[in-house]
Amino acid sequence: MKKLVLAYSGGLDTSYCAKYLSKDKGFEVHAVSVNTGGFSKEEIDTIHQKALELGATSYTSIDAVQTFYDKVVKYLIFGNVLKNNTYPLSVSAERIVQAIEIVNYAKKVGAKYIAHGSTGAGNDQVRFDMIFQIIAPEIEIITPIRDNQLSREVEIAYLKENGVDYPWEKAKYSINRGLWGTSVGGDETLTSHKSLPDNAYPSQLQETEAQQLKLTFNKGELIAIDGENDIPVNNIIKLEAIASKYAIGRDIHVGDTIIGIKGRVGFEAPASLIIIKAHHLLEKHTLTKWQQFQKEQQGNFYGMLLHEGNYLDEVMRNIEAFLTDTQKNVSGDVYVTLHPYRFELNGIDSSHDLMNASFGSYGEMNKGWTADDAKGFIKILSNSGKIYNHVNQNHD
Amino acid sequence: MKKLVLAYSGGLDTSYCAKYLSKDKGFEVHAVSVNTGGFSKEEIDTIHQKALELGATSYTSIDAVQTFYDKVVKYLIFGNVLKNNTYPLSVSAERIVQAIEIVNYAKKVGAKYIAHGSTGAGNDQVRFDMIFQIIAPEIEIITPIRDNQLSREVEIAYLKENGVDYPWEKAKYSINRGLWGTSVGGDETLTSHKSLPDNAYPSQLQETEAQQLKLTFNKGELIAIDGENDIPVNNIIKLEAIASKYAIGRDIHVGDTIIGIKGRVGFEAPASLIIIKAHHLLEKHTLTKWQQFQKEQQGNFYGMLLHEGNYLDEVMRNIEAFLTDTQKNVSGDVYVTLHPYRFELNGIDSSHDLMNASFGSYGEMNKGWTADDAKGFIKILSNSGKIYNHVNQNHD
Amino acid sequence: MKKLVLAYSGGLDTSYCAKYLSKDKGFEVHAVSVNTGGFSKEEIDTIHQKALELGATSYTSIDAVQTFYDKVVKYLIFGNVLKNNTYPLSVSAERIVQAIEIVNYAKKVGAKYIAHGSTGAGNDQVRFDMIFQIIAPEIEIITPIRDNQLSREVEIAYLKENGVDYPWEKAKYSINRGLWGTSVGGDETLTSHKSLPDNAYPSQLQETEAQQLKLTFNKGELIAIDGENDIPVNNIIKLEAIASKYAIGRDIHVGDTIIGIKGRVGFEAPASLIIIKAHHLLEKHTLTKWQQFQKEQQGNFYGMLLHEGNYLDEVMRNIEAFLTDTQKNVSGDVYVTLHPYRFELNGIDSSHDLMNASFGSYGEMNKGWTADDAKGFIKILSNSGKIYNHVNQNHD
Amino acid sequence: MKKLVLAYSGGLDTSYCAKYLSKDKGFEVHAVSVNTGGFSKEEIDTIHQKALELGATSYTSIDAVQTFYDKVVKYLIFGNVLKNNTYPLSVSAERIVQAIEIVNYAKKVGAKYIAHGSTGAGNDQVRFDMIFQIIAPEIEIITPIRDNQLSREVEIAYLKENGVDYPWEKAKYSINRGLWGTSVGGDETLTSHKSLPDNAYPSQLQETEAQQLKLTFNKGELIAIDGENDIPVNNIIKLEAIASKYAIGRDIHVGDTIIGIKGRVGFEAPASLIIIKAHHLLEKHTLTKWQQFQKEQQGNFYGMLLHEGNYLDEVMRNIEAFLTDTQKNVSGDVYVTLHPYRFELNGIDSSHDLMNASFGSYGEMNKGWTADDAKGFIKILSNSGKIYNHVNQNHD
Repeated sequence: MKKLVLAYSGGLDTSYCAKYLSKDKGFEVHAVSVNTGGFSKEEIDTIHQKALELGATSYTSIDAVQTFYDKVVKYLIFGNVLKNNTYPLSVSAERIVQAIEIVNYAKKVGAKYIAHGSTGAGNDQVRFDMIFQIIAPEIEIITPIRDNQLSREVEIAYLKENGVDYPWEKAKYSINRGLWGTSVGGDETLTSHKSLPDNAYPSQLQETEAQQLKLTFNKGELIAIDGENDIPVNNIIKLEAIASKYAIGRDIHVGDTIIGIKGRVGFEAPASLIIIKAHHLLEKHTLTKWQQFQKEQQGNFYGMLLHEGNYLDEVMRNIEAFLTDTQKNVSGDVYVTLHPYRFELNGIDSSHDLMNASFGSYGEMNKGWTADDAKGFIKILSNSGKIYNHVNQNHD
Repeated sequence: MKKLVLAYSGGLDTSYCAKYLSKDKGFEVHAVSVNTGGFSKEEIDTIHQKALELGATSYTSIDAVQTFYDKVVKYLIFGNVLKNNTYPLSVSAERIVQAIEIVNYAKKVGAKYIAHGSTGAGNDQVRFDMIFQIIAPEIEIITPIRDNQLSREVEIAYLKENGVDYPWEKAKYSINRGLWGTSVGGDETLTSHKSLPDNAYPSQLQETEAQQLKLTFNKGELIAIDGENDIPVNNIIKLEAIASKYAIGRDIHVGDTIIGIKGRVGFEAPASLIIIKAHHLLEKHTLTKWQQFQKEQQGNFYGMLLHEGNYLDEVMRNIEAFLTDTQKNVSGDVYVTLHPYRFELNGIDSSHDLMNASFGSYGEMNKGWTADDAKGFIKILSNSGKIYNHVNQNHD
Repeated sequence: MKKLVLAYSGGLDTSYCAKYLSKDKGFEVHAVSVNTGGFSKEEIDTIHQKALELGATSYTSIDAVQTFYDKVVKYLIFGNVLKNNTYPLSVSAERIVQAIEIVNYAKKVGAKYIAHGSTGAGNDQVRFDMIFQIIAPEIEIITPIRDNQLSREVEIAYLKENGVDYPWEKAKYSINRGLWGTSVGGDETLTSHKSLPDNAYPSQLQETEAQQLKLTFNKGELIAIDGENDIPVNNIIKLEAIASKYAIGRDIHVGDTIIGIKGRVGFEAPASLIIIKAHHLLEKHTLTKWQQFQKEQQGNFYGMLLHEGNYLDEVMRNIEAFLTDTQKNVSGDVYVTLHPYRFELNGIDSSHDLMNASFGSYGEMNKGWTADDAKGFIKILSNSGKIYNHVNQNHD
Repeated sequence: MKKLVLAYSGGLDTSYCAKYLSKDKGFEVHAVSVNTGGFSKEEIDTIHQKALELGATSYTSIDAVQTFYDKVVKYLIFGNVLKNNTYPLSVSAERIVQAIEIVNYAKKVGAKYIAHGSTGAGNDQVRFDMIFQIIAPEIEIITPIRDNQLSREVEIAYLKENGVDYPWEKAKYSINRGLWGTSVGGDETLTSHKSLPDNAYPSQLQETEAQQLKLTFNKGELIAIDGENDIPVNNIIKLEAIASKYAIGRDIHVGDTIIGIKGRVGFEAPASLIIIKAHHLLEKHTLTKWQQFQKEQQGNFYGMLLHEGNYLDEVMRNIEAFLTDTQKNVSGDVYVTLHPYRFELNGIDSSHDLMNASFGSYGEMNKGWTADDAKGFIKILSNSGKIYNHVNQNHD
């Protein structure tokens, strides 16, 4: 029988695929879900059972949270990547790692086919297909939802006909949860002017008392919260738990999709936003002006290519080498205060802090240079402008 | 007598300069202050009187608010310029326009000397001196505070000896107010880890009820608030009045000074932050991906050179031409909700909105292209990655 | 009858299209060729006659040389655009203007179809289709060669069957000539290691005596050769005539096609290379460092998007505004010496020359600043490095 | 006695310094010359003897050719660095390594002073002083030529008075030779319009017969010429010897000095130009489009900072990490033909060549994708332009 690996999430679209591909199309369906931080143990068990009920020959859950951090999240932090200065690329980033895990699994089990449930109007199809094709051009990609432009009603009816009668009522808001944030889509995000109501967001305000945290970074990685050491992945999860009680990190991203249309999506990403802003502040103290200048350009570019599914382009490895090298001295503590719906960066403490009083302070008298040095500096700095003005003023 | 134009603010340093230069150095001192939004009518009258008391031959107040907007602020909005993603360059930007006004005044009145009160450890000396030297290389620059590294005590004692006995007690926080924001310096900003206390900021929370505003932009400029048309300068002032009651727009900027040390400064800039973020959101809807990509790089670069006093470099005019051209379709309404200490962008409404449902919506079925088109798109998009992998996998 | 506009060049592919579309497919074929500098009057007459013989209802030759210069070539000069530091984008640039002219013609005559002869493996199909679809999404695009993957033999046989028996022997080298250069393809360019033989290039060495030319630019445009004023288009043509006798401007470009594969193409472009290099030299004398820095990035980006058919992206207009603004002072004479197979830039003469002896010469003693000024300059310039080293040396 | 290390070249300026500092100023002068490829054994012996005659306590020649390659030249090749698309940064690059070697030597021998012979109007003073101050802020820098603005005549007279009577007649052209090229200054380079005469260049045409070379690169480094393996430094020297017989690699660079004036300098750098162009061609075949795009920006920026003496800024290490990572597959043979005064790149041969026929050739029929794939690709690619036009055409 024709072995097929199905990227399976337990939702309506991929449930339809599981049934349709196993029953109507005669594939031996191996359902796989890749956990990049969004699934609990219980959810995975439910997904597992469902997959088998729908006709899958096997179900596998791949735990890729650490891989997700190592391959992508780490560099998003190093690069302070916020798409359009707003969005931490939560879902975009996960898809990349999910695609890699799935195609590697397919190669391992010798499948000749991979199926996924994306439509033909989004970014995910591009991210999945590109990575599948590049890593395993010999594997055929099957996409029933995209190919047949099926509506929910048609899918539900088909499943019912085939004896599957789950309660598929559509959630008012489609939620995508992962280590690096949760996206929220709804009727409002299909317009340009409506914001999401408070209750669309998965976390609700539970804490109103302000709280200060100490985030400790070592070479750009979050290694401790309030002095308690742990691996970065766990620290992200802990910070998310603390900060989501303040309903921090909500916003709406308006972006350019890979297929050229504009898209709008809500998100809640307290941990990613706090970490990126805290990390960025630490960099302002520990990096030179030109390091920051180059990092800003490289980080934005990295985010753009990641968003567009170009993760496998070799330039991404080159930029990762650059970003890693910039983090040598990005170590120290960052103080953050959480408030309802917002956070404040209070300051940092680092043995690599370049704001070092022994060389003179901004605006204060100092021993590092004299008034004449400063005047000489400015005089020479003015040379090119002086010459330009002298040469061109007679001509205008 | 030797005619000298003194950049005069009414503070201790420039008061010392007025007395010292007129009495001890025998200059004919013409005091000038340039208002870029920080002075009220009353303050100017006080400054005027003081200047004459201190020995100035004349005092002139130049109203440069509109000039400041036309020459600088407009482009900071077009470019969404936030230094290090944080600081709207409030003071940096003002200094440029003040320097230009002063040197032009000096040329007009035929002065051979310009004096200012900057120290030798800050950015302002560079901004002032560069612009003075480039526009009028024939004018000599006189800087008693920088040259003599005078302390406050010495200055106060000198003034007392000379019959000037104002109450010069040092304010706990040094405040610099202008159209595009207010900077706040204090003991805390000389450290890396302390934040400014609430009361260091000029505005205090007065409104706790959330309020929605409609900001209307035309070709990138703020032409109306809640439907009421006015010139952009007035709209900025109005928005500042409304938003400062919410204590919005406070933050601390850590930056690289022109002289190579790190500096830290608090600021309160509700209008600039709201306008830049609202304008940026409107651009996400109305500009193409590549316009945004290029604008981000150009805007950041423009901000860097402006901050460093390089305003007169011809490249700044070139970038202004670029930025102006990008604003052709940046017109429409932006909805913003003000909350205590923060604001939310709700959405936009624009006839230039590229998120246009007639071409299909993100993630939804559409009529613009077929599944096969999407598959062909992704296939071709994968070509370079496929080839790279094919060629290089055998060699690693 | 169904009105169709055919982009017609007189070659085998488009001749096949003319016959096939008029006879087999029942279209009313209106053949159009757009002259961007490659066709002589005689060639156009021949093409005209052929088109009618092949069944076209009408034939129109559009003279777009001046349009080509105004819309594209001018900016390629302003931006010193050489793709991969090598290729003046000769053919890429022409296709854009040809596509725009053709689609506008089709709209004017009310055609519902446009046909072109591109294959499915090149850049031209993308440039044509994109521009057609963006400007006239309502017009259907017909591409028989691409759709049917026809070989030359099949096309010739078909034409013969239909009474058209021209001598279609394949030229050893396919030549594409235009105002901005001539491309040359052959068996060698399908390999990575072979260069084109001397006789593959359209121009052969006729002059061996070195010759100096004076090229005069005004605001970036070539307005005179050796003191003789003419419009830029004519100057390009004249320069091409002179320099091609020296067999100057031959090279091979290896580039990334829009469809993701690498392509290699020979070219001969003496006028474009001389003009770009001369113009660039003039800019080195008349622009500031930062103007050159930004122009290099913008110019390269402009070339990339143009090459990829993205000419209609609004960012291109924005960059054109930037580039135009940079040319205000790019006026003066450039001296060039032509030698067999190469040229030398001798120097420039410009009233905007920033290398102005009155401010001191490189390495020579001067009156603009003192040794102490220079020492102060360097001292302050060293601040950030000193601090970095001081702070970080204890930690490594 | 006060121990001083003098950067000594054997020329008039540093000879003056040797005598003046030892005799008049009472320093214990330790003369040091750093060989970055410009000195032969005989020249070093002469310099040695002269130094002692002039009063130096010791003379040391530091061989830094390999260090120069490892620290700088390698990255200039990786980055294809040509300042303003012209100049391989020959002298700029050497100065950096010379400064580092000298200051490290001074620290080793415990000198409290370093002297050099730069004037106050060039780049070298900045490169030397910056590196000295950053690495050893405790060492005082002594610069008699800059401080006293001495003329040649005064220096010669002083030496004569002190019993030193060498033939100091000024060479018509000042020549600076090193591993990465030779700079040539003369009366002509002080003008904007004159080129250097043939005989100003150190190498003269000796070979007129064209010759093909095979240059073999491994991970970006030149490891063999015509199949003969050697270390890169030796290959550069060999290539220089071969190509200089063809008088290849002459040009004039017009650049922005660090002190803001324009400077013009001739150079002869056959090996650097051939290597950079050959290496660049190999990259066009082996790197992706985005790698090339990013490398171009990073390489230019690296060259700018190196030129300006900012070698020690940490961003340079970060960019080196980036550049090194890009070279993983830049391996293969490049074929170059040398002609009198010019060279041609013929092509390359590499197992990493991405121009790989198995995926279809440019413009030819292929099996990798169908006409429909290509059409789908272009359709989706046109989406954003179509939407832009649709939305905005009604408003203009």
